[in-house]
Amino acid sequence: MAGNTFGHIFRLTSFGESHGKAIGGIIDGCPSNVEINFKKIQYELNRRKPGQSSITTQRDEADEVEFLSGIFEGKTLGTPIAFQIKNQDQKSEDYDSLKDVFRPSHADFTYQEKYKIRDHRGGGRSSARETAARVVAGAIAKQILAKTGIHICAFVSQIGQVRIEESDLKFSELDIEASLVRCPEKNTSAKMIQLIEEVRSKGDSLGGKIKCTIIGMPAGVGEPVFDKLHADLAKAMMGINAVKGFEIGSGFSAVEMLGSEHNDEFLPGGQTSSNNSGGIQGGISNGQDIYFNVAFKPVATISQKQNTIDKNNNEVVLAAKGRHDPCVVPRAVPIVEAMAALVVLDQLLRQKASQV
Amino acid sequence: MAGNTFGHIFRLTSFGESHGKAIGGIIDGCPSNVEINFKKIQYELNRRKPGQSSITTQRDEADEVEFLSGIFEGKTLGTPIAFQIKNQDQKSEDYDSLKDVFRPSHADFTYQEKYKIRDHRGGGRSSARETAARVVAGAIAKQILAKTGIHICAFVSQIGQVRIEESDLKFSELDIEASLVRCPEKNTSAKMIQLIEEVRSKGDSLGGKIKCTIIGMPAGVGEPVFDKLHADLAKAMMGINAVKGFEIGSGFSAVEMLGSEHNDEFLPGGQTSSNNSGGIQGGISNGQDIYFNVAFKPVATISQKQNTIDKNNNEVVLAAKGRHDPCVVPRAVPIVEAMAALVVLDQLLRQKASQV
Amino acid sequence: MAGNTFGHIFRLTSFGESHGKAIGGIIDGCPSNVEINFKKIQYELNRRKPGQSSITTQRDEADEVEFLSGIFEGKTLGTPIAFQIKNQDQKSEDYDSLKDVFRPSHADFTYQEKYKIRDHRGGGRSSARETAARVVAGAIAKQILAKTGIHICAFVSQIGQVRIEESDLKFSELDIEASLVRCPEKNTSAKMIQLIEEVRSKGDSLGGKIKCTIIGMPAGVGEPVFDKLHADLAKAMMGINAVKGFEIGSGFSAVEMLGSEHNDEFLPGGQTSSNNSGGIQGGISNGQDIYFNVAFKPVATISQKQNTIDKNNNEVVLAAKGRHDPCVVPRAVPIVEAMAALVVLDQLLRQKASQV
Amino acid sequence: MAGNTFGHIFRLTSFGESHGKAIGGIIDGCPSNVEINFKKIQYELNRRKPGQSSITTQRDEADEVEFLSGIFEGKTLGTPIAFQIKNQDQKSEDYDSLKDVFRPSHADFTYQEKYKIRDHRGGGRSSARETAARVVAGAIAKQILAKTGIHICAFVSQIGQVRIEESDLKFSELDIEASLVRCPEKNTSAKMIQLIEEVRSKGDSLGGKIKCTIIGMPAGVGEPVFDKLHADLAKAMMGINAVKGFEIGSGFSAVEMLGSEHNDEFLPGGQTSSNNSGGIQGGISNGQDIYFNVAFKPVATISQKQNTIDKNNNEVVLAAKGRHDPCVVPRAVPIVEAMAALVVLDQLLRQKASQV
Repeated sequence: MAGNTFGHIFRLTSFGESHGKAIGGIIDGCPSNVEINFKKIQYELNRRKPGQSSITTQRDEADEVEFLSGIFEGKTLGTPIAFQIKNQDQKSEDYDSLKDVFRPSHADFTYQEKYKIRDHRGGGRSSARETAARVVAGAIAKQILAKTGIHICAFVSQIGQVRIEESDLKFSELDIEASLVRCPEKNTSAKMIQLIEEVRSKGDSLGGKIKCTIIGMPAGVGEPVFDKLHADLAKAMMGINAVKGFEIGSGFSAVEMLGSEHNDEFLPGGQTSSNNSGGIQGGISNGQDIYFNVAFKPVATISQKQNTIDKNNNEVVLAAKGRHDPCVVPRAVPIVEAMAALVVLDQLLRQKASQV
Repeated sequence: MAGNTFGHIFRLTSFGESHGKAIGGIIDGCPSNVEINFKKIQYELNRRKPGQSSITTQRDEADEVEFLSGIFEGKTLGTPIAFQIKNQDQKSEDYDSLKDVFRPSHADFTYQEKYKIRDHRGGGRSSARETAARVVAGAIAKQILAKTGIHICAFVSQIGQVRIEESDLKFSELDIEASLVRCPEKNTSAKMIQLIEEVRSKGDSLGGKIKCTIIGMPAGVGEPVFDKLHADLAKAMMGINAVKGFEIGSGFSAVEMLGSEHNDEFLPGGQTSSNNSGGIQGGISNGQDIYFNVAFKPVATISQKQNTIDKNNNEVVLAAKGRHDPCVVPRAVPIVEAMAALVVLDQLLRQKASQV
Repeated sequence: MAGNTFGHIFRLTSFGESHGKAIGGIIDGCPSNVEINFKKIQYELNRRKPGQSSITTQRDEADEVEFLSGIFEGKTLGTPIAFQIKNQDQKSEDYDSLKDVFRPSHADFTYQEKYKIRDHRGGGRSSARETAARVVAGAIAKQILAKTGIHICAFVSQIGQVRIEESDLKFSELDIEASLVRCPEKNTSAKMIQLIEEVRSKGDSLGGKIKCTIIGMPAGVGEPVFDKLHADLAKAMMGINAVKGFEIGSGFSAVEMLGSEHNDEFLPGGQTSSNNSGGIQGGISNGQDIYFNVAFKPVATISQKQNTIDKNNNEVVLAAKGRHDPCVVPRAVPIVEAMAALVVLDQLLRQKASQV
Repeated sequence: MAGNTFGHIFRLTSFGESHGKAIGGIIDGCPSNVEINFKKIQYELNRRKPGQSSITTQRDEADEVEFLSGIFEGKTLGTPIAFQIKNQDQKSEDYDSLKDVFRPSHADFTYQEKYKIRDHRGGGRSSARETAARVVAGAIAKQILAKTGIHICAFVSQIGQVRIEESDLKFSELDIEASLVRCPEKNTSAKMIQLIEEVRSKGDSLGGKIKCTIIGMPAGVGEPVFDKLHADLAKAMMGINAVKGFEIGSGFSAVEMLGSEHNDEFLPGGQTSSNNSGGIQGGISNGQDIYFNVAFKPVATISQKQNTIDKNNNEVVLAAKGRHDPCVVPRAVPIVEAMAALVVLDQLLRQKASQV
């Protein structure tokens, strides 16, 4: 049972290999009669796409989405919305030498073990290029959520050892997008860019952390005991390429807190005096802001020499050519937002199904 | 669409409120002809149950599991395995005063918001008592996994600020179970127990961290792009009561590593020289040990006074009576193992379905 | 991937072998705050249970349902509703001689082939006793549907060659229940009873047909292109023991009709002048009455001698002892209604999830 | 929760409106390393496509399928297989006058009721054009099944009142395809063609019946109690446009049979002396041939005048223009086979997942 469908009511089934004809997906369960803003979809794709700034890979994909069904005269029909993004700037020959090589910390080895066949060009299905389909679906979900007053906003809070102070975490989308690295704090942003340039020059790569907030969430959404709202968010985030960790609200810092410090007291009206819960209690939203952190490992593709093996168990020394980001975290911001939007809209619709 | 079923092939549907007649579940999709060791199931339940040591709650539940179907002459039939654990030692009257009160950082408020009704006794469905059903299903999964050479083992690596050194993380089940707090390192264990006693005397509570390892995992298991093995593990863990964070392999520490440090080079034979990946690459197991950390917040129930509100928006001052653990983390060890076993067996069976 | 769960939003997972400890199920996704009428549930169980009249099997099961969770102070909590019906009157020794025998047109052979193990007592999991769980869940679904004005009513329209005239198909529940064979037309009912007695005396068995109507269905319910309302009804009915055929509206008679005869013209107000569609067009309800027929084969258990084989491929001559119905169709009426109720409520709730 | 995905392990998600840019789908869960015969896929599409003979609609669609992903160097990757068939010969202006009209026994009214919006051109999503996606997925499933020795073959057994004798039902694919109406019995085929011409000249339409057989099915496949093999087949068939009835094995004729006539005795070796069961007992295949009938209503589109209403509840007199089949049943043969193939492969793979 393969795993290329996400969600239960609002469902995305994604397809595509990095250097195949196209990537894309089908959204099933999209509410009907929603007016689609196509520019906003393209805007989200542009935030994710390579080549958008001096610090990202120079692969030049137009990344234009074409809708094949489910939208009529600008409005959703309630039927499946299929879309594709054609793969244009494929330099598949860059990968010829990698046909049989297992790159360290990539998915070459595991895809070969699992499927006994793989499309080696550009990482095939395991390429992060696939996440463009998620961004399209997420952009539609965001539009629907916006109508109900729910807004999702993520930013880069750390790259390598450069980080924003935790005390200062509310930012405007404008400030975020003004930064090449999507870090809204100007000084930190500058330091991050400098760090990326340094590391790139050494042929190395960097990890980072994204913080995401969901504002305007109504109370009562989430499905215990297994499909708790934060459990679904965790799954969504951990399914993004290069993600190694997820924490909600107080997260790992809760380990060292006392109950008396951690508990969020209710105030008259149902607000809480603190928000260590991160807007979710018992797996159900409580009406406070939801926020969580996502940890990204450094990109596996580096141009330094590495030892590895090939399919025939021969030792190989590898040094990546091709075009690669030293740090993908800034481009992952719209992906984090998209996956969060898919989770929240799906759970909102699940809640609608709970009463006749 | 409610969320009380976990898994796709090996599926657990759980039921039960803390002070209802019983809790339990149905396992559908269990392989047939498996000889069941009932003692091992009870052993796992005993590891989870309250009252097992001086540092846990004194609620005295026998927690004996009764199987109603799916097992014939000691072997599984391949049909649904239903089981129940009766609720015996209910002191529901302890909760009478809480009927309308929303306890801070509990799920009282959110259940009321979601369902517009709740069973207030002992937390109802949101009680961690429900996890006993997971432990039963997990114990069966563990028996099946053991036959294929897969073993799952978790322990407490941190309580409050007392933690095991990260350099020393391979332990025997014997050492783990020898410790009241399931911390296999003796000195640390002793400090943890001392800390729990101190905090209990102040009417406060503690969080902690559990490390879990999966040994003997074959390569090739996991379902990209959404049902990656670690994404399913994350969801499973985040769905456990009081969990606030999850990280696989290098986890949050990857944020500050360079690619050249983080990458796991392949050695001839397919082993890797390091294991920052935590045994999973591209969402598929690579044959190395899988390991991950789970962060638990301090228990929400404390006996210190807290301010909160009731259903009618009146301010209330609350001080828990009843019987409660100052730190549930040691009892969560079998739950973490159980959920890991459900994920791994489910994914193994999904892999079986991938070829005619 | 086993198949013991029915439905998507309102989901029944059923369990139990005929001579195990109990049969029962878990309903997940039941709307909260529904006041449950337990008498009506028991009434439906009584309609299905053996020993209810002179023409049915004399197995004497109390068939009393016990609820274990999900209901609090008489109302649903929105959490899983678990229930069990204990197996009491087991004469398992009647089946000792059948331990290794494959009864003709039973599921003994196929269960053995599939699972390589089976509980031979009373047919084990393949016994129609399992349908009691469906009746319980269906009885709850019916109560919820009744509140929205939807009523489901089935009756026996044919046994052997004795049938009701098709021209006369609207009957009251009272007339149906007044008949031992649940055939509301008095003369036909009398003939059916006579036929059953005759066939019973010869140690043989009879098939029959049930007609079911769904009154008060709103337009707009059903999920094309695969989960069309009548496709889900077909699956539900074909999953009932002994069912061999299903037809909606005009059904098989449509084969010989012309389009000009078959088409249902719309009248002002949206009613149709005829109802060959059976209340469903393009898989979606159109607001007219839904009606369908279900064909049952004659019971496989007969007391006449039959040739067959055992597990070791030995030829065996078989003559059933035990207690059996010569015709189960009258007892299948509440099962047909229950499965219809599960489909309709599930689809209604799916429709609720289609808009934010 | 929409319904555009079919299957559990081998899953087809279909998309597309009749006059949109394209129709198509994504197959997820296709086994990897399967060599695809593209000609055979196109052959199946050609069997379904309009304009293939003098008795079908003259809409001239090339119906060429383009694969976008999941196939590499002619073999399946185990990743999602996306495909599209572009809509070329759209005469959407033929439908302008129908924009607001509800055609009798079409899905115009119900789509409008459900979604509050619809693409009226060519029936939009409710058009049988969508079934081309099923034929593509089914053609791949058939290729995989053929490797395991399973063959699926359907033919037209009745049109209007012209039918094949039931005594004579085993035919070769060659004989079937030699007939314009896919009726392998020459005399009957000629009569059917004559009937179709007659009815067409009167501006009317015809229904019919298709018989489908599954040869080479191994015993032990099917998932009781709800996902019985014949229940899944029923759902698959009832989901095809214009289908009104389904029966397996003896089907509706079982109603009038005695148990002693109907039972299939087992012979040494596990064969049965008769096959009223239709190859399935207790929802699980028994190794005998599976066969079933599917009833199709006459096409709703006729050129005779009909009374109906429009969206504003005005009375309208309608006479179809455009290009339409007087009888779609011959073109439905590959659709029936495709859906059967999807069910059988999905259930085979489910069975694989039943053992570690």
